Amino acid sequence: MSAERAELLAIGSELLDPWRTDTNGAYLSRRLGEHGIPVRFRTVVGDRVDDIAAAFEVALRRSDLIVATGGLGPTVDDVTREALARALALPLQEDAAILSWLQERFRRLGIDMPPRNRRQAMVLQGAEVIPNRLGTAPGQLIRAGDSAVVVILPGVPSEMRHMVDEWLLPRLPSTDRYVYRILKIAGLNESEVDRRLTPVCDTAGAVDWTILAAPGQVEIHLRERVPAGGTAAGVERLERDIGAVLGTHLFGRDEATMEEIVGRLLAERRDTVAVAESLTGGSIARALTEIPGASSYFRGGVVCYSDDAKVLCCGVPATLLQRHGAVSEAVARAMAEGVRSSLASTWGLAATGYAGPEGGPGGPPGTVHLALAGPPGTDAVRLRVPGDRGVVRLRAARGALDLLRHALIGKPA
Amino acid sequence: MSAERAELLAIGSELLDPWRTDTNGAYLSRRLGEHGIPVRFRTVVGDRVDDIAAAFEVALRRSDLIVATGGLGPTVDDVTREALARALALPLQEDAAILSWLQERFRRLGIDMPPRNRRQAMVLQGAEVIPNRLGTAPGQLIRAGDSAVVVILPGVPSEMRHMVDEWLLPRLPSTDRYVYRILKIAGLNESEVDRRLTPVCDTAGAVDWTILAAPGQVEIHLRERVPAGGTAAGVERLERDIGAVLGTHLFGRDEATMEEIVGRLLAERRDTVAVAESLTGGSIARALTEIPGASSYFRGGVVCYSDDAKVLCCGVPATLLQRHGAVSEAVARAMAEGVRSSLASTWGLAATGYAGPEGGPGGPPGTVHLALAGPPGTDAVRLRVPGDRGVVRLRAARGALDLLRHALIGKPA
Repeated sequence: MSAERAELLAIGSELLDPWRTDTNGAYLSRRLGEHGIPVRFRTVVGDRVDDIAAAFEVALRRSDLIVATGGLGPTVDDVTREALARALALPLQEDAAILSWLQERFRRLGIDMPPRNRRQAMVLQGAEVIPNRLGTAPGQLIRAGDSAVVVILPGVPSEMRHMVDEWLLPRLPSTDRYVYRILKIAGLNESEVDRRLTPVCDTAGAVDWTILAAPGQVEIHLRERVPAGGTAAGVERLERDIGAVLGTHLFGRDEATMEEIVGRLLAERRDTVAVAESLTGGSIARALTEIPGASSYFRGGVVCYSDDAKVLCCGVPATLLQRHGAVSEAVARAMAEGVRSSLASTWGLAATGYAGPEGGPGGPPGTVHLALAGPPGTDAVRLRVPGDRGVVRLRAARGALDLLRHALIGKPA
Repeated sequence: MSAERAELLAIGSELLDPWRTDTNGAYLSRRLGEHGIPVRFRTVVGDRVDDIAAAFEVALRRSDLIVATGGLGPTVDDVTREALARALALPLQEDAAILSWLQERFRRLGIDMPPRNRRQAMVLQGAEVIPNRLGTAPGQLIRAGDSAVVVILPGVPSEMRHMVDEWLLPRLPSTDRYVYRILKIAGLNESEVDRRLTPVCDTAGAVDWTILAAPGQVEIHLRERVPAGGTAAGVERLERDIGAVLGTHLFGRDEATMEEIVGRLLAERRDTVAVAESLTGGSIARALTEIPGASSYFRGGVVCYSDDAKVLCCGVPATLLQRHGAVSEAVARAMAEGVRSSLASTWGLAATGYAGPEGGPGGPPGTVHLALAGPPGTDAVRLRVPGDRGVVRLRAARGALDLLRHALIGKPA
């Protein structure tokens, strides 16, 4: 089979509700794209058999690979099988092997198979059955004439994903494929990244790229079409060129997160960290402790939201608070040094500032002082962050982690 | 015009990329739904004029209101106008009023209009122009025969939204409308909510409902079709019935969050809180401080991830840690009492446990002890949370906030 024009159908009335999103479409777009098959249409349709049949008929006229998800369950709302049978004018037949597999599955759970599950054994005449290791809804693949292939899969993401990865993709022709890469950047805003990369961009050639402002960081998304057996030479070269321009602002790629990278650097150096947070309210500690094994390098933290807490929990002298105010470089330094000393850690990391909507004597909302105390002494950074309360807190927390990352990169493992 | 069957078209190659989502579709589904117009199909299509024209042709056969977003910009990739002209076999004509408005808009910015922006003045013969206050892309509304209306709008969400709210919706026939309500539940899992609500569900009548497991809480989404001028009597009655069954487990509705509700209860009572967190790593403090004004009731927190930190920051006796282990009811109580005492707050809230992937001497991963120290004494709760590290941390943090909420409800303001 060829597959030049793929189309996705997401079936389920709940997917038309305003609060739901079809996440299966993003997964399938990526996996098919990596396999060299571009998705040209994505359609969402409710549980009405007429509408689904109409959507299949449209897709069959314009696409040669149609992957539909959802509507394969046991209830009367699950009508994808019937709709496809109508669109292809083919009968549904009960499949004895599926039926006995279903009955056996329920027997192992110690219950009789509910009669309604019998519908899940109905297969289009001539279809191949796609086994489902994780649920009761098998998938089906059917060839429609010489020109098109239709695949129906369950809508439960975990079930759909393993059936795509283990069964469907190995059966699809692999010619060209797409290679994706995400590069992650800290400490520069989107327009500054754009400005610095303009000369590199002009040499991108066949690599598609997009600069996206993600929460608290900037990402560059690269995509290259690579012939079967070839390598993503363009993506590799661009990643090197971007790294040369952005230096240590480029901190990670693909799935890697800032907190993972900081955690790895700490663990490699057998260093520990303690944090003292005011405006970030626990966000830095929370990010560091998201990583399994964080207890080997994270000593603890204090959220000293009030002046009292700064004195009691971080040993900030009350006179310093009176003289400089809670939002000041001097207090940030004292917080970092105090928490480092009281928890006996290699590094003490601190953030104070105004998250907003109000500012104060230390400046307008978005005024942030970060400090890092460690073996080389204490370093401080002042940020002015535009944005609402959530954005200021996030940027301050990411800025603090990036300050620690830079110190760790400078210190050999 | 009537509008019984609406269809949305999201136009833009970037929307077919795996990392992008069409958020305009969710907005339009909700706004049209509230206006009584159900969306039956949503289609995403790239920037190819052939594909877009094909998508319009399909939509014109099956829908009577078609709202397309995207592809109205000034670049050669922006071909929605041309595609719709082809699908309707109508000419595009330059609109003198739009052209002079565009030229004036650029003049006010002090620059000459780039020649490519001239394309944005092209209007389908017979179309009404939809003004765009926020950008250079006007929308268009065109009647296709007696049966259908096509609306094209820019893809920039802020521009699209004001054009829908201010121009389009007031022109659509308002007969019935949909009323949405979200009810939020803490302390019960999805299947328990489902079980308890079965008798209520049987009386739901014309109200659609869905039970959804949201992160750390359960939500019930209600939707009712209400005739013009009518009230959402079914939603109101169901909300009362659900409240009668679930009692104080029902904690909020629509946009309200647990941390907002806890913050409001604390502020009303002029109470304060301090937190001591182990496995949640700062999540409880972070949630409480997300709310502007939290400094009036949040005294501070400690993230005592190590045994040392529990002793140093919360005054947990070292002998207690040795005797009971860090994950124990005794230590949770000592953390809550210690942080309450050292920060002089009305309430001290504590969480200790194993987030996973490893457990320990106190139990398997997912073992969580929560404690609340306050005027009536100290209360402790043990949870066993299934799920991965992130889920355990989130459920523990939400469970802790819910423990405080229950204590506050029991204490008059």
